[in-house]
Amino acid sequence: MSRTAVIAGQGGLAPAVIAALDDPLVYALDGFAPPVPATPFRLERLVPFLDRLIEHGVDRVIFAGAVRRPRLDPEAFDPRTAQLVPRILTALQSGDDAALRMVLDIFEEHGLTICGVDQIAPDLVPEAGILTGAPTDSDRRDAARAARILSHMGDLDLGQGAVVAQGLCMALETQPGTAAMLDFAARHTGLRPDPTGAKGVFYKAPKPGQDRRVDLPTIGPDSVDQAAAADLAGIAWQAGGVILLDRQQTVQRARAAGLFLWARPQEGI
Amino acid sequence: MSRTAVIAGQGGLAPAVIAALDDPLVYALDGFAPPVPATPFRLERLVPFLDRLIEHGVDRVIFAGAVRRPRLDPEAFDPRTAQLVPRILTALQSGDDAALRMVLDIFEEHGLTICGVDQIAPDLVPEAGILTGAPTDSDRRDAARAARILSHMGDLDLGQGAVVAQGLCMALETQPGTAAMLDFAARHTGLRPDPTGAKGVFYKAPKPGQDRRVDLPTIGPDSVDQAAAADLAGIAWQAGGVILLDRQQTVQRARAAGLFLWARPQEGI
Repeated sequence: MSRTAVIAGQGGLAPAVIAALDDPLVYALDGFAPPVPATPFRLERLVPFLDRLIEHGVDRVIFAGAVRRPRLDPEAFDPRTAQLVPRILTALQSGDDAALRMVLDIFEEHGLTICGVDQIAPDLVPEAGILTGAPTDSDRRDAARAARILSHMGDLDLGQGAVVAQGLCMALETQPGTAAMLDFAARHTGLRPDPTGAKGVFYKAPKPGQDRRVDLPTIGPDSVDQAAAADLAGIAWQAGGVILLDRQQTVQRARAAGLFLWARPQEGI
Repeated sequence: MSRTAVIAGQGGLAPAVIAALDDPLVYALDGFAPPVPATPFRLERLVPFLDRLIEHGVDRVIFAGAVRRPRLDPEAFDPRTAQLVPRILTALQSGDDAALRMVLDIFEEHGLTICGVDQIAPDLVPEAGILTGAPTDSDRRDAARAARILSHMGDLDLGQGAVVAQGLCMALETQPGTAAMLDFAARHTGLRPDPTGAKGVFYKAPKPGQDRRVDLPTIGPDSVDQAAAADLAGIAWQAGGVILLDRQQTVQRARAAGLFLWARPQEGI
């Protein structure tokens, strides 16, 4: 029998993915308990863990949710995983992308297929369209500018979000993450050149060249609250490249707050 | 007689430049009073203003200090400046770089030479060297990463500062400016992967391709206070490309706070 294993991280994605699957096995990296029941595993014992997946008939694996880099305990390695230590250490000292690619490679070398969220639960990854509200021409220009900034920054393996208002970049996502960036934008709304003009757009996109099977950026009801607190006009994102959690609740909150939600086609403005 | 005119902006640069000159004429854009006595002029009457400079025997002009984009009053234009309106409007709607280039062009078309701070007061633009403290190897790697990020972002006409700690980009300068970026970094010091490891570096550089005669980034005593509040190891900047205000006070404060100050050679690490 063919089964799917979910590597559950923190945040709301793992429950949404699990709900879309038929009886998956659920695991989580030890120390990063997800909001769902999950069997813990340790990176120091990765090879025995992969063997166990195979024994359970798993052939597909899906990574769902945020995981921070674990601290490794040198005593905890089993002999076979220990042989991977040079690769693991190199990866952990690289950017996020390189670290993830290494993990995916090791899974695949054990005969497992990594699936993206869009393959398992396409409803979670909206295609192009406006979900609520109506971006103005100014908003569309701000979204286009933000998209250009993020696509340009991709080689740097930095964040996946930006805030642009009236053509000016008000905030860029860095290590502290999206909520911190929107909090920053909220502190500096007074800098818009025209106080009565366009309020600005929070834009989100995967890194160019990013492996889309893992770590697609996520937005959800909290993003709406944070964007509203920053007094923005709406949220736009690269259609097909961003996971939308709890669509109904997200749209409801955006409508209540007067924000638009726009899955923006990559080539459009 | 050949004279120099200083277009004084806000911040500490104008007083430092004026102190280095012999009897300069000092002007300031109306509405942006600098911390020195200055004759105001309006962008709407730019051409008569340039004529006045020529009449006073001015042949060199130096821009010193920050100016935000002025709001224009359509009623206030004189007929000759009105002919420049299309260029002025285009420039004001472009990035900072394009706006500045247009202003410089108009000055030069009137026969005035724009001088950089490094030509007038070379002491204000430190060449490569460590002014206090000692960056560790980790600090040097963090500075190198920050330099790479900023050089890569230059085409986007964004900020001129970054904070990198343990290889991770903790903050990028955007429209709200340096102090806001360092305040952001101060809020998120807890995200360094190794709490006892390298604290991180605040790095500053001109935009690649920027006209170095105007708007070089500036650091000074306040930068030290802000970097210390963000619990950083030190401040590094592109040697020859950043203005250091009040060197004595800046070095004293850095020494007292245990921060290094490093004018980093562009090619070095």
